[in-house]
Amino acid sequence: MKSGWRLQTQTGCTNTKAQVSQILKYCNSRCLAVVPQGGNTGLVGGSVPVFDEVIVNMSLMNNIISFDKVSGILVCEGGCILENLITFLDNQGFIMPLDLGAKGSCQIGGNVSTNAGGLRLVRYGSLHGNVLGLEVVLADGNVIDMLGTLRKDNTGYDLKHLFIGSEGSLGIVSKVSILTPPKLFSVNVAFLACSDYFSCQKLLMEAKRKLGEILSAFEFLDSKSLDLVLNHLDGVRNPLPPTLHKFYILIETTGSDEPYDRQKLEGFLLHAMEAGLISDGALAQDINQASSFWRIREGIPEALMKAGAVYKYDLSLPVEKMYDLVEEMRTRLSDSANVVGYGHLGDGNLHLNISTAQYDDGILTQIEPFVYEWTSKHRGSISAEHGLGLMKANEIFYSKPTATVSLMASIKKMLDPKGILNPYKVLPHSLSS
Amino acid sequence: MKSGWRLQTQTGCTNTKAQVSQILKYCNSRCLAVVPQGGNTGLVGGSVPVFDEVIVNMSLMNNIISFDKVSGILVCEGGCILENLITFLDNQGFIMPLDLGAKGSCQIGGNVSTNAGGLRLVRYGSLHGNVLGLEVVLADGNVIDMLGTLRKDNTGYDLKHLFIGSEGSLGIVSKVSILTPPKLFSVNVAFLACSDYFSCQKLLMEAKRKLGEILSAFEFLDSKSLDLVLNHLDGVRNPLPPTLHKFYILIETTGSDEPYDRQKLEGFLLHAMEAGLISDGALAQDINQASSFWRIREGIPEALMKAGAVYKYDLSLPVEKMYDLVEEMRTRLSDSANVVGYGHLGDGNLHLNISTAQYDDGILTQIEPFVYEWTSKHRGSISAEHGLGLMKANEIFYSKPTATVSLMASIKKMLDPKGILNPYKVLPHSLSS
Repeated sequence: MKSGWRLQTQTGCTNTKAQVSQILKYCNSRCLAVVPQGGNTGLVGGSVPVFDEVIVNMSLMNNIISFDKVSGILVCEGGCILENLITFLDNQGFIMPLDLGAKGSCQIGGNVSTNAGGLRLVRYGSLHGNVLGLEVVLADGNVIDMLGTLRKDNTGYDLKHLFIGSEGSLGIVSKVSILTPPKLFSVNVAFLACSDYFSCQKLLMEAKRKLGEILSAFEFLDSKSLDLVLNHLDGVRNPLPPTLHKFYILIETTGSDEPYDRQKLEGFLLHAMEAGLISDGALAQDINQASSFWRIREGIPEALMKAGAVYKYDLSLPVEKMYDLVEEMRTRLSDSANVVGYGHLGDGNLHLNISTAQYDDGILTQIEPFVYEWTSKHRGSISAEHGLGLMKANEIFYSKPTATVSLMASIKKMLDPKGILNPYKVLPHSLSS
Repeated sequence: MKSGWRLQTQTGCTNTKAQVSQILKYCNSRCLAVVPQGGNTGLVGGSVPVFDEVIVNMSLMNNIISFDKVSGILVCEGGCILENLITFLDNQGFIMPLDLGAKGSCQIGGNVSTNAGGLRLVRYGSLHGNVLGLEVVLADGNVIDMLGTLRKDNTGYDLKHLFIGSEGSLGIVSKVSILTPPKLFSVNVAFLACSDYFSCQKLLMEAKRKLGEILSAFEFLDSKSLDLVLNHLDGVRNPLPPTLHKFYILIETTGSDEPYDRQKLEGFLLHAMEAGLISDGALAQDINQASSFWRIREGIPEALMKAGAVYKYDLSLPVEKMYDLVEEMRTRLSDSANVVGYGHLGDGNLHLNISTAQYDDGILTQIEPFVYEWTSKHRGSISAEHGLGLMKANEIFYSKPTATVSLMASIKKMLDPKGILNPYKVLPHSLSS
């Protein structure tokens, strides 16, 4: 295996689309494989070269092209870093409809190409709903202008969706047009304890109904997750001492009226307490406390890294089944590993993490393919938001039937007949070679 | 031109997908053209045969397959009538994320196939965001199972989006999985007058910011629209007498707390009045008055029908440009026609209607291609939500560049090589034959 070499585009806005196009045209004519690369923050090896692919790094295509304050529509280049867009919009009184831990490095073109989910999905929905337009450079260097800035446009097939989540294997996203919601100033965060998983589900249903329009996050973690964070991250304290509860829920509301929203959340919590859905809880009194609650939830991956080796799975499952997998995995592995479950309960997205002192093939064979088979049996997704990349390309059949995968391969063949774009990724090797 | 004949599927749930598959397999083998037909309520001739196509009517595939109350995910067959789904969900405490005038006849498969927009889009977004999965029968009879019931699933290309809005020209939607929001019980409606279009825009920006999380509709109509309704529909009264104002806005809010939501809307209206954005207004005091306000907005198409011949255009435009077109058209046609503008201002969607005593080719040549050229010049869409169907297929280039349309034609060729599915629709004749 040779290491990849890096061919970085070197100028700013106007020329760069043409440069990407020229590079692809050249590579296509010579059958040279290409890896499009944004912030390189993906978790499944989608943005790293496998053999000797040319890396097309998009970092210099980082211009904001336009922002329409009446409709909240932002148009920018694919290499813009997510956090920079968040800051830009903040100054305009708007927010990005997506937010994720890697925001300081990840790029919007990469976010679109991987259909990134993140923390605000429960409120604002997926990028398929929020991205209004794309400009994409195809494998042969042709530039496809689908850069609409309209909320509604039913003129022909909406081809941009093919590129959202295709992990750079169908084209390189050079420009993005996205709908951004106005910033609402009243944010409240509560950290709650539940004594069983059924109560977590009931609480979710109640929150959707009673907090409906202001609910902006509904995250969950189990006691093992909190325990990890308390043991491995400095300065984190248990918000609900003295003991550990079985489950924790972080609820965030975002609205336009501080006193009312707070009163509404307080009323909801009181009701949930009386109904026995939560056994303890704390409502953040200021922004520091709110941040400390979020730090627990967002700090879990870091704590896992510090704890040793970790096997990570990002699964979508029917909410009522979700935690069964964590418990079955615990039984299966007994004392040989620490099995941790957390995630975006509001979206049915479980992050199942198995932490061990060091990587061990014996443990891996106990985890896989069991975890995929279990997910498949319950009609779940083996990759809720991380994508397939290199690491999970061959597992696609656990979540998609053969005929559907064949159709994907036909699309790939049509758009990239020589197979130069991000080879060995997304599609199973049996179909992509 | 021969009239189409009707081949209706004759049994219920389980067998019918197989029937649709068999019919398509047969038709494909014999090169017989097929028109998929739902409620046949489209406005651009997408669901009617042009020559001697076989009609595949989906009405009997009308079963609800499952509903998950925890996550609000409904799975049903493509022939379910929208209003029946709305009623079903209402009993479960949920709502459909789309609502439109034709709900009593239109079918969910047709809604998906035309990417129907409607009245709730400003709140819940488009079907690309809300549809979680589809089962589709391809032209050759193969059934593609993309019927996920997960909010997040990044395993391979998300092919269902190809079929959302492809107007039955790529496949027949046999099953739909859709995310439905919980029903919120507090609904308030206000009918407001603005003295100029700039105030309408400012009011929209303010409403998004101040009513943010509860705003569920922001509709506008001009004085000519109200005048038409008052003159042609029985029992409709001017809510803001005695005179006509230049513009009217209907604002609807939907939330979970009646007294608070009302107080919030009242505060917003007071502020808007003080800032000079609205010149008069009425807040519905009960459900009857709310219905009477909606009756005005929803009654415009009916009033237009009663007024004589009508040339209808469904355009997306940048909000700040939108009304310029109505005024230019009025200048252009002077006294020969009544030019009416109304629509979903919150989505940048103008319904431009030109009413005359009878159809007249002289007037048509003054309207077209001017209306398309004007829309194209301002990077608008010549079909915001109605689709292209038969009537606008050749106008696609006003909204989409040649390379993008060619790519659409390649997709069509790949999925339906014999071109049997809904011929003469969506794609321009130069590319579809």
